[in-house]
Amino acid sequence: MSRIGMTSEPAKQTYAGAGVDTAAADRLISRIASVAATARRPEVLSDVGPFAGLFRLGTYDDPVLVASTDSVGTKVKLASVLDRYESVGHDLVNHCVNDILTSGAEPLFFLDYIGNFGLSDDQKVDLVRGVAEACRAVNCALIGGETADMPGTYAEGDYDLVGFIVGICERGNVIDGSRIEEGDALIALPSNGLHTNGYSLVRRIFGAGLSAPGQPADPEVERAVLEAHYPELGGTLGDALLLPHRCYLETLKPVLSDIRGFAHITGGGLPGNVPRIFPDGLVARIDRSKWEVPALFKLIQERGNVADEEMFGTFNMGVGAVLAVAPGDVTGFCEKLAEAFPIGEVVAGDGFAWA
Amino acid sequence: MSRIGMTSEPAKQTYAGAGVDTAAADRLISRIASVAATARRPEVLSDVGPFAGLFRLGTYDDPVLVASTDSVGTKVKLASVLDRYESVGHDLVNHCVNDILTSGAEPLFFLDYIGNFGLSDDQKVDLVRGVAEACRAVNCALIGGETADMPGTYAEGDYDLVGFIVGICERGNVIDGSRIEEGDALIALPSNGLHTNGYSLVRRIFGAGLSAPGQPADPEVERAVLEAHYPELGGTLGDALLLPHRCYLETLKPVLSDIRGFAHITGGGLPGNVPRIFPDGLVARIDRSKWEVPALFKLIQERGNVADEEMFGTFNMGVGAVLAVAPGDVTGFCEKLAEAFPIGEVVAGDGFAWA
Repeated sequence: MSRIGMTSEPAKQTYAGAGVDTAAADRLISRIASVAATARRPEVLSDVGPFAGLFRLGTYDDPVLVASTDSVGTKVKLASVLDRYESVGHDLVNHCVNDILTSGAEPLFFLDYIGNFGLSDDQKVDLVRGVAEACRAVNCALIGGETADMPGTYAEGDYDLVGFIVGICERGNVIDGSRIEEGDALIALPSNGLHTNGYSLVRRIFGAGLSAPGQPADPEVERAVLEAHYPELGGTLGDALLLPHRCYLETLKPVLSDIRGFAHITGGGLPGNVPRIFPDGLVARIDRSKWEVPALFKLIQERGNVADEEMFGTFNMGVGAVLAVAPGDVTGFCEKLAEAFPIGEVVAGDGFAWA
Repeated sequence: MSRIGMTSEPAKQTYAGAGVDTAAADRLISRIASVAATARRPEVLSDVGPFAGLFRLGTYDDPVLVASTDSVGTKVKLASVLDRYESVGHDLVNHCVNDILTSGAEPLFFLDYIGNFGLSDDQKVDLVRGVAEACRAVNCALIGGETADMPGTYAEGDYDLVGFIVGICERGNVIDGSRIEEGDALIALPSNGLHTNGYSLVRRIFGAGLSAPGQPADPEVERAVLEAHYPELGGTLGDALLLPHRCYLETLKPVLSDIRGFAHITGGGLPGNVPRIFPDGLVARIDRSKWEVPALFKLIQERGNVADEEMFGTFNMGVGAVLAVAPGDVTGFCEKLAEAFPIGEVVAGDGFAWA
């Protein structure tokens, strides 16, 4: 963890000539360090320090560390069109927090990695600021990160934003699907948009965020696409598409012990993710009539002339998480979580079935 | 953690048409999972599983988690010229292991991220195989990872390989530089090459690995550059440049308690990294005459006509780690580690000084 950029640019045979300005790099490191320091916990022994981040664990009976890594994917291409850099940091953290929450874990700390070519220092700091804000919101310490400038790998202005999270859970409280039984109820939590999946298709349908290495796009045209107002969205397309990924931690904390299985609806939609949590011989039967697909997905489907199955196999379609709960717990569960709603049940079988 | 690729390619408005072949993705995930499973520890509760990796911690008195993230940087560009994908996995893991070892931590688990466009499944599996082999060698579990296909971000055949490591150390054994005193000895451990830093400059000097988004290079010409034999290297330039990063864990395990400060020599060389470990008011004085700079660095300097200061501020110059040790421990330390050699001492002051 060193926040040392590596570049390869121009002429003279010095490292500075090859694009590395050490003094400038030091200034950036110090700006990033002060932003990262806003997401701290008392357990952090050193934050953005020399070579690693240190986190004192505290006392647990039988602790299980739960870790995950992910990137925001091509949502960043849309964000770049609108010059937004903070919001994707929220996407990254919230996606990762949800991923470990599927096991019942609460976050301890996070590290970010920015690979890029040609982002300004301000843009890099904005990315980390978004990460730090989202970490702070869930009491997760941002204990490290790395910024790598690689002009030979990324196109100018392009970047990849990768996150790593570590959380913790007592062994007895791990959610692993093993308690799921036939007849259990499946409860949904609404998404607030695409979260971080399906953006490759959406970018193509609307014609935005399509620049690629060696193939520049017209920024004015793409911006106009995203700034268009849609009455059914109650705002612009760009705002709807860039709404940061919802985080389910605060919502679900009070009911974690009631959850027998937890599917985070990411790439592959409901059919791609719900089956992943079941023991052999059990399968989800989900009833699509149980919820109204949000306007954003209808707009995408109409504009792209996309088939239903394709839509449900690509996007979350308004459902960000599916939880398996004992039938007797459903009422209490839905009373505690006003937004939760039943969408199906666990039946004998394999794979995935629509009701 | 889901190993779900995201692509944006061609024509029809389906996600498969946009480049995602779910069945093929599932086959890749299963190949990667079986490779990753070769690097396991008994504490792993689930390996490449649905949304996260789980690791049961065991019993410690006052455990400190030590985490770091890094990428291999542009060394991957040279590896691509020679069609080598496994070795950079070793680079990634060994670099990360050394980073947390600076705090006295031993590795627990690792996660990898591959962002790319156009890598074949075999190439992706080779990358992960290298990561898994290197993890196994240091008893580190590979508990997760992600592969993201992003043609809008990476040029064809280009990729970024990012790693994330978590290790552990008892609070009382953390190496944090606080015990360093004036008069302490500085001990060096040899590097085995460039490790993972300075490749942007090296690629320019020799003219290899220079393809960039929209600017393809001539693969035959670049390969010939790397396949050239140099008597002073005892082999080809490519073999010397692609030698995987050394890992210092096994070497240093028996003497960790004697180490008061530990600098991993990465980007910025000795002057860029050694000062990072000292308390205020103390500084390293290093004597360059204490070791012979290896032939590879001399070749780079000569070919590139690079000034001495530039060389020492960019490359490790043959020193991969610098350790601060009490004067009375030096003899015993160097007896235990045949390859270690004294290169300087700790003096009052700030910054960095050559003797």
